[in-house]
Amino acid sequence: MTAVNRQILLVEKPTGKLGPEHFRLAEAPIPEAKDGEVLLRVRYISLDAANRAWMHGATYRSAVEANTVMAGGGIAEVVSSNAPGFAPGDIVFGDTGWQDYAAVRGKHLTRMPKIEPMTYLLSVYGIAGLTAYFGLLNVGRPKAGETVVVSAAAGSVGSIVGQIAKIKGCRVVGIAGGADKCRWLTTELGFDAAVDYKSGPVFKQLKTAAPNGIDVYFDNVGGDILEACLPQMNLFGRIACCGAVSQYDGTPSSHGPRGVPGLIVVKRLTMQGFIVMDFDSQRDQALADLQSWVASGQLKVQEDVITGLENTPQALIGLLAGDNRGKRMVKL
Amino acid sequence: MTAVNRQILLVEKPTGKLGPEHFRLAEAPIPEAKDGEVLLRVRYISLDAANRAWMHGATYRSAVEANTVMAGGGIAEVVSSNAPGFAPGDIVFGDTGWQDYAAVRGKHLTRMPKIEPMTYLLSVYGIAGLTAYFGLLNVGRPKAGETVVVSAAAGSVGSIVGQIAKIKGCRVVGIAGGADKCRWLTTELGFDAAVDYKSGPVFKQLKTAAPNGIDVYFDNVGGDILEACLPQMNLFGRIACCGAVSQYDGTPSSHGPRGVPGLIVVKRLTMQGFIVMDFDSQRDQALADLQSWVASGQLKVQEDVITGLENTPQALIGLLAGDNRGKRMVKL
Repeated sequence: MTAVNRQILLVEKPTGKLGPEHFRLAEAPIPEAKDGEVLLRVRYISLDAANRAWMHGATYRSAVEANTVMAGGGIAEVVSSNAPGFAPGDIVFGDTGWQDYAAVRGKHLTRMPKIEPMTYLLSVYGIAGLTAYFGLLNVGRPKAGETVVVSAAAGSVGSIVGQIAKIKGCRVVGIAGGADKCRWLTTELGFDAAVDYKSGPVFKQLKTAAPNGIDVYFDNVGGDILEACLPQMNLFGRIACCGAVSQYDGTPSSHGPRGVPGLIVVKRLTMQGFIVMDFDSQRDQALADLQSWVASGQLKVQEDVITGLENTPQALIGLLAGDNRGKRMVKL
Repeated sequence: MTAVNRQILLVEKPTGKLGPEHFRLAEAPIPEAKDGEVLLRVRYISLDAANRAWMHGATYRSAVEANTVMAGGGIAEVVSSNAPGFAPGDIVFGDTGWQDYAAVRGKHLTRMPKIEPMTYLLSVYGIAGLTAYFGLLNVGRPKAGETVVVSAAAGSVGSIVGQIAKIKGCRVVGIAGGADKCRWLTTELGFDAAVDYKSGPVFKQLKTAAPNGIDVYFDNVGGDILEACLPQMNLFGRIACCGAVSQYDGTPSSHGPRGVPGLIVVKRLTMQGFIVMDFDSQRDQALADLQSWVASGQLKVQEDVITGLENTPQALIGLLAGDNRGKRMVKL
C-alpha cells in the first residue's frame, strides 16, 4: 500500500491539444474521511473522451479547474467510512479523481456489486455499457432489419452499441480509424461492415457499406463524420447524439455540420442528445440485459487496461487520438 | 372568366437570389379533364418559403423543373370532373400550380369544406395553421410556464405558433425583422416579447427576452438565428425544425450552426424535423381546436392577400425577403 497519496494534477487547462505538459504528479497526505465522507482506495480509473470536454467549461458537470486533482470516475474500495451505508471492503463507483486515495461524500457514491472481473464495472456494466444500451435502444430505437451506423465504433461505447444492434437484428456499420480496428469489428464483433475514416472519404465508403441508407446513427464524434452521415439518413431516421469527440481536443470547430437544419426538416430526422444518468430509473433492466448477453456470449467485452497512476495522462492523450480498442482504464 | 389559361412558368432555376427574370407569363388553352382528372378554376394560390426550396432539388416532393408551370398549392373550384367524388362547384386544395386553370388527378386533391372567408382554407385551417399546430404541440410539446421562442414570428406559421403557445400558458418570444412587426406581435397577437433581428445581435436580445432560457424553439429559419438560440436552450429543450428559410434563397450556407452536436449532448436537446403531412391522422382534432380558438377570439388570423396571377412571382420574391405579415396568398 502506498504510504502517501499520489495525485495527478491538471496544471493548466489546454487551449489547444492536450499534452503531458498539462499534468503533474504530486504527493499529498492520505486524506481523512470527514463526517458524511468515505475514504477510498482507488482501484481503476476510467478514461473517457468526456474528461477532455470537462476542461472546456461546465458541461453536464462543472468544469475541471487548473491546479486541482484531475477529475475522473473510478472504481474504488472503501477503506473507512464516516457515511451511513458504507463499510470497509465495499466496492463503489464515483468521481474519485486521478489519485490513489480519495475522501468522497457518501451520497456521491454508487455502491457496486462484487463481480469478477472487477473491470466489468467500468466497461460493460459501467457508464460505457449503459450509455451504449440506453443511447441505442431508448434514443436510437432501432427496429430489426434497419441499418445502424456507429462512429468511434472500436471504442468503449461504440463496440457495445454495434453488438447490441446486431442482437436486435439490425444491419450494423462501424466507423473507425485504421484497417486493424475495422477488421476487428467485422471479424470479431460481428459488424456487417466497417468504414475506415483514415483510408478515404467517409461519405463514399458509407454509400457502399450502407446501401439502403441509415436509419439510426449513433454519433460519438460530431464534425465531418456527422456531416457525412446526414445526407444518407433515411426518412424518419434517428441520430443519437452521445458525444462530439472530434471537437474536444484542440480548438472546437468554428461551425457545425452542413445540412442542419435543412436535412432534418426534409427527412424528418430526430437528433437527440442524452447522457447515461437520464435513464437511471431503467438501470436494473439494462444491467440484466447486458449480463444475459455477456453470459450467452452474444456480447463480447473488450478492455484496454493500462497499469500505473503515472500513466493516466498519456492514457487519456492516447484515447483522444484513438489509440484504444474497447474500454480504456488505468489500474492502480 | 378568362378565355385562355394564363400560366406562370419557371424559366430557369435560380442559382443565386430568386428574381422576376426567373419567371414568365404565358398563355395556353384551358386543359380538359382526362379520365381520373378534375378541371379546376384556381381561386387562391398559396405562397410559401418552401416554393423556393423546391427549386433546389427533390425535398419532400420532387423538384420543380425549368420551363414548366411553377408548382404551388392552391384553393380551387371544380369546373368539371372526370374523377369519382368530385362535382362542379366543389372546393378543393391541391398542387394546382401558378395558373388560372389546372387539370389535376382527383386522388391528388383534398376536398375542402365551404367556409367563409375561403382564404382561411389556406391560412389558419390550411397548411400554415396545421403546421403551426402539429409542430408546436406534437414536436415542441410545450408545458404551461415554459418559454417558447419562434422565428419568422410574423409569418404565416410563426404568428399562429406564438398564439397557440400563449393559449397553452407559455411565455412566448417572437423573432421577426423590423420594429413594426415586433410591435404587432406584442400589441396585437399577445406575444410576451419580440426580438428584432434587424436591430442588433439576436443572441443578446434573446438573453433579455427569454431570461429563463428557452424550452421550445420553433425554428422556421435555421442559420444564424438557430445558432443564437442553441446555447440558450434549457436542459431537455426541444427544437421543432419546420424550415430553413435563411438557406433557401441564394447559395445555401456552406456550414451548419455551431454547437451541433456538442450542445445537443450537453443539454440533452431534441431537434426534430417534421412536415404537416406526417400528422394527417390527427387532422380533424387539430381543425376542431383551431376553429374553437378562432371562434373564441383567442387566435387572430392575419392574411396578406395580393390580387392577380401576374403578381405571383413578386409575391414570392417579397415573401422570401420577409415583406409579408401573416399568410400570403394570391387571389386570381
